[in-house]
Amino acid sequence: MVLILRKNAEEKQLKNLIEWLKNQGLDVHLSKGRYQTIIGLIGDVSAIDIELLKGLNIVESVMRISEPYKNANRKFHPDDTVLDVCGIKIGGGHFNVIAGPCSVESTEQIIEVAKSVKKSGATLLRGGAFKPRTSPYAFQGHREKGIQMLLEAKKETGLPIVTEIMDVGSLPLFEDVDIIQVGARNMQNFELLKELGMTRKPILLKRGLANTLNEFLMSAEYIMAGGNSNVILCERGIRTFETSTRNTLDIAAVPLLKQYSHLPVLVDPSHASGIAQIVPPLSLAAIAAGADGIMVEVHNDPEKALSDGAQSLNPAQFDELMQDVKKMLTIFTDRKLVEIREEER
Amino acid sequence: MVLILRKNAEEKQLKNLIEWLKNQGLDVHLSKGRYQTIIGLIGDVSAIDIELLKGLNIVESVMRISEPYKNANRKFHPDDTVLDVCGIKIGGGHFNVIAGPCSVESTEQIIEVAKSVKKSGATLLRGGAFKPRTSPYAFQGHREKGIQMLLEAKKETGLPIVTEIMDVGSLPLFEDVDIIQVGARNMQNFELLKELGMTRKPILLKRGLANTLNEFLMSAEYIMAGGNSNVILCERGIRTFETSTRNTLDIAAVPLLKQYSHLPVLVDPSHASGIAQIVPPLSLAAIAAGADGIMVEVHNDPEKALSDGAQSLNPAQFDELMQDVKKMLTIFTDRKLVEIREEER
Amino acid sequence: MVLILRKNAEEKQLKNLIEWLKNQGLDVHLSKGRYQTIIGLIGDVSAIDIELLKGLNIVESVMRISEPYKNANRKFHPDDTVLDVCGIKIGGGHFNVIAGPCSVESTEQIIEVAKSVKKSGATLLRGGAFKPRTSPYAFQGHREKGIQMLLEAKKETGLPIVTEIMDVGSLPLFEDVDIIQVGARNMQNFELLKELGMTRKPILLKRGLANTLNEFLMSAEYIMAGGNSNVILCERGIRTFETSTRNTLDIAAVPLLKQYSHLPVLVDPSHASGIAQIVPPLSLAAIAAGADGIMVEVHNDPEKALSDGAQSLNPAQFDELMQDVKKMLTIFTDRKLVEIREEER
Amino acid sequence: MVLILRKNAEEKQLKNLIEWLKNQGLDVHLSKGRYQTIIGLIGDVSAIDIELLKGLNIVESVMRISEPYKNANRKFHPDDTVLDVCGIKIGGGHFNVIAGPCSVESTEQIIEVAKSVKKSGATLLRGGAFKPRTSPYAFQGHREKGIQMLLEAKKETGLPIVTEIMDVGSLPLFEDVDIIQVGARNMQNFELLKELGMTRKPILLKRGLANTLNEFLMSAEYIMAGGNSNVILCERGIRTFETSTRNTLDIAAVPLLKQYSHLPVLVDPSHASGIAQIVPPLSLAAIAAGADGIMVEVHNDPEKALSDGAQSLNPAQFDELMQDVKKMLTIFTDRKLVEIREEER
Repeated sequence: MVLILRKNAEEKQLKNLIEWLKNQGLDVHLSKGRYQTIIGLIGDVSAIDIELLKGLNIVESVMRISEPYKNANRKFHPDDTVLDVCGIKIGGGHFNVIAGPCSVESTEQIIEVAKSVKKSGATLLRGGAFKPRTSPYAFQGHREKGIQMLLEAKKETGLPIVTEIMDVGSLPLFEDVDIIQVGARNMQNFELLKELGMTRKPILLKRGLANTLNEFLMSAEYIMAGGNSNVILCERGIRTFETSTRNTLDIAAVPLLKQYSHLPVLVDPSHASGIAQIVPPLSLAAIAAGADGIMVEVHNDPEKALSDGAQSLNPAQFDELMQDVKKMLTIFTDRKLVEIREEER
Repeated sequence: MVLILRKNAEEKQLKNLIEWLKNQGLDVHLSKGRYQTIIGLIGDVSAIDIELLKGLNIVESVMRISEPYKNANRKFHPDDTVLDVCGIKIGGGHFNVIAGPCSVESTEQIIEVAKSVKKSGATLLRGGAFKPRTSPYAFQGHREKGIQMLLEAKKETGLPIVTEIMDVGSLPLFEDVDIIQVGARNMQNFELLKELGMTRKPILLKRGLANTLNEFLMSAEYIMAGGNSNVILCERGIRTFETSTRNTLDIAAVPLLKQYSHLPVLVDPSHASGIAQIVPPLSLAAIAAGADGIMVEVHNDPEKALSDGAQSLNPAQFDELMQDVKKMLTIFTDRKLVEIREEER
Repeated sequence: MVLILRKNAEEKQLKNLIEWLKNQGLDVHLSKGRYQTIIGLIGDVSAIDIELLKGLNIVESVMRISEPYKNANRKFHPDDTVLDVCGIKIGGGHFNVIAGPCSVESTEQIIEVAKSVKKSGATLLRGGAFKPRTSPYAFQGHREKGIQMLLEAKKETGLPIVTEIMDVGSLPLFEDVDIIQVGARNMQNFELLKELGMTRKPILLKRGLANTLNEFLMSAEYIMAGGNSNVILCERGIRTFETSTRNTLDIAAVPLLKQYSHLPVLVDPSHASGIAQIVPPLSLAAIAAGADGIMVEVHNDPEKALSDGAQSLNPAQFDELMQDVKKMLTIFTDRKLVEIREEER
Repeated sequence: MVLILRKNAEEKQLKNLIEWLKNQGLDVHLSKGRYQTIIGLIGDVSAIDIELLKGLNIVESVMRISEPYKNANRKFHPDDTVLDVCGIKIGGGHFNVIAGPCSVESTEQIIEVAKSVKKSGATLLRGGAFKPRTSPYAFQGHREKGIQMLLEAKKETGLPIVTEIMDVGSLPLFEDVDIIQVGARNMQNFELLKELGMTRKPILLKRGLANTLNEFLMSAEYIMAGGNSNVILCERGIRTFETSTRNTLDIAAVPLLKQYSHLPVLVDPSHASGIAQIVPPLSLAAIAAGADGIMVEVHNDPEKALSDGAQSLNPAQFDELMQDVKKMLTIFTDRKLVEIREEER
């Protein structure tokens, strides 16, 4: 860490600062120039509050040289993390496709979707039981019953299940859930992250709508600091001025996260765009950018008028996408679609 | 609500849609033009999922005409909401200044700050006990002990206290807290909002970094839908591309929120800017824009080198600001600074 | 176009508005509901100022149903536009790679780069002669001499040249330039666009940093309205809060622009990211998303310390990327890399 | 300027870099640590391309310590710049109100508005002759005739006139214009800025929709580098995700620009918000934040239905605003509304 001091820095304040820094266990290197005075800090600065330092009268600016995350940092863990979820490997060249409906509506629905997406090649089943909704008057999901429905679908198909948690209190209900999802709105719900860090459950952490990659990795660090290293990162679009899409998929986040961290990186093109029609090209772009998997909304209700949500593919569209995904993966030797064998059931 | 249908809308799908809408208890007005077919919906559309409708094959676009929030809506409650917190009125012409340190550090510190800000004219005391921190390695606050320290300061000065809650689980610890703050990162922690809606505690709800005014009011609606109408809105800056300030204070949010809603609107210039030097001009701008109060960080540790955080004023700076606030309020006849009488202690 | 009127709309104002609309040559359909009055407009609304209507006292909101762009609109021109630049086809399945240095530095340099990128498979040569620089003190490019250097490189290699124009005044200098680039900062320099619309030159129009897709297409429309239909669109990243990359590549813009318009769509991963290391994955993502080509910065100065700019690939890196591009295109049957034959020289 | 080098920096590259830096006339201070090597640069770094340095293999990051702008920098010119426009002083405590219609429509209209706003206390007249419009099919302004109409209004009222230029070519038409406005879309039209730098005309420079304060000041620097120090800065809102307002007024820009620069700082609440109703509170907020003036759209066509644009005040609303502006200024001793005496005509 490097501190640039203001020109008018008082000697007394400077002395106080240096003393305080030394008390934090840091080596302090002072270099006074004619125009500028710079303090270099060597040691473990991860607990130093950079905002506090920036706020000091005598400090002009602060530059962090090393990243504040450690467990999530590829520098300290060069090899890819590979998770094992019910025998299915995630990361390190194992490509996964998580598919399923936005909300779990009924046992029949989720089983039907599960069978359908499995047939097309999906490796994990998603479905919302607890639904974060902007309006208190909108349907909030089937909650614990929704989880039971997902478990039925797992029993029927063997596909491990992924579903979202919304608060610490409902954690006991997630005991049989294979991967617990933390939604974008909860990416900085630090109490929830800490609690999940105490478990050893695989966590699918979605990037917040207004969060930088650095903050995203710091939230992963919250979980990992508790001892749970089973974290999957998921880019799902950020909020920008553009209104053609619901959010803006930050495709550059994929290669950067892979570079900064050893954790698996997934992309959710359905939430990123909100437009079913462009989910396939964005899915292929995610593979091309280096993603370890994609997470796609698939709905399945061909009889009713309200079958297809704006961002959900129907089974036929999903099957077509999976053909393209498989073709695409043939030219990337570093990743292979995970195969679900019938015996795994 | 108005639906614009696509040109190629199939009769069968249209029939299904109209039937479904009628089942939701809505009056459906269909007008077929040569080029366009439009459906007008009359009735209570607050529970309708606009995203679902947008996603339908046959729907080109959807326009909500009335706001999806009701309890928070000025249209249905033209008069300003006025809260009463330990005898101090908030909203409806009663101007308040919430002041105090970012973190509660010790009983001595918080009492000293409380005395100092009260003397300058602050009407409520703030201080962080539970601290949301980007890094898991940073100090997370004194937590329950911090609340005790705040209560000591209240006993000493009579100033009601405001402090942030971070999860549902710690709600019992907030029984004696006068105003519970929900931070920007938890603005869409819906489970927390619902739980707070079950209490009758005054809630200071901060706008999320990437949330629109509409979403902000919907989060207030979550609390109010539970029966708790004691909600205070606080604009504290949004995330933009500009890096000179920590966030961008959306000053236009003040008159707009006052127009859309009857709830009191406060401004937090400290978090919005992150720069102590511009907290005074932004505070005055907030008054000029029509705010019902401001929330300002004040630190008080003149002996130590690390006394003043980047965004905190010291007591002398705060006192000077309060002189200007008082002068400023003299020209606005619609608002008056709440007076704290010694007897209230 | 649909206008939603305010509840309190005065009869006289309404009558005035309807009359005015009819005078614009529009069919006016008024439907008065118990709660809402809606005006539907049929006819050519492209010249109607939507902001003006929004601003009327009696108008609550306005919804444009048809796009305001016509010449650029795929609805009216379903077939892909295919440009022919010195025998090289662009768009309509003809995939192109524009490569070259950020700035043209010398005749030797540009010839060397041109030869090198041509050997690797590039189909067009780019190089900055006029350089838009944030600082007036930074090197502003070799200007007219830079264009001469590019023409030398064209003579040597046969590669058509692409270079940026910065103002109307220098248009005569671009007579021999094959494709004139309009940079992001000039995307709404309407006087320049109009002037370029008067020529029949192929124009590579880059998206502005803060411009929506709709505005982007409206700028293309400016050129096309003058009679010049030789427009190529180029997505090059938008400005967001994320600071890991220089801009945020809006990959979803690619399939959306292809859907909205018949014009060729290119992607510039170098300017979008500002990081050479992630230019290859972003290039492949662009192909996967459906782009008609990419535009890549390649520098070539292996002897000097300052050879590689943050976002430029060196020739070896570019050659490796081109191998991947070719491999990638084998699985997309809708697009084929344009081949440069030696005879074309 | 400080460069942080990568760990694996090769000696040869380091040597090349240091040599190159010395050739730029800089003092180079190398400090090698166990973990990090840092290069400090002393001297005139304003012409150094920071992006180029960031792009070097061996450089991890670069921190600019001093600002790249000089002429616009308050550090080198502590005193406020005061412009004199036909006897009216701008900046340095002289508060100005620029008012007038969005577009000049006719001589009668502009004279009527001019008389009206002058009566209410406006000190300068604005009106668009050349109009930057998103659509090529929208009215582009009366152009040279519009300037003539403005000059008529000046003759009639004595109010100096402000109008926008859109390209270098029309500069000769602006000879009699008192203040030339550069619009947000042209803030980085560097060729135009250079040309304006060659004149000695007062320039009202508006901030670009996606430009940082630093870029804004660099654009001012472009004009000043040519010798024209008559620059007025105008904050007019930036583009963010919020859609309630047309743009987001960055009120914090006002005190920051005043701190960074000695140039006068104005605020345009009309374009920033696009909503007439909140123009008054935003105007007052601008004064409270320290602005040297405001620029307000006022329309004047009470007979016609289409009289008031979304963001324009009518004369009565403007007159009311001016009463509040005057009241507001009474409590700020550092600024005083400029008085227009009849003799000045």
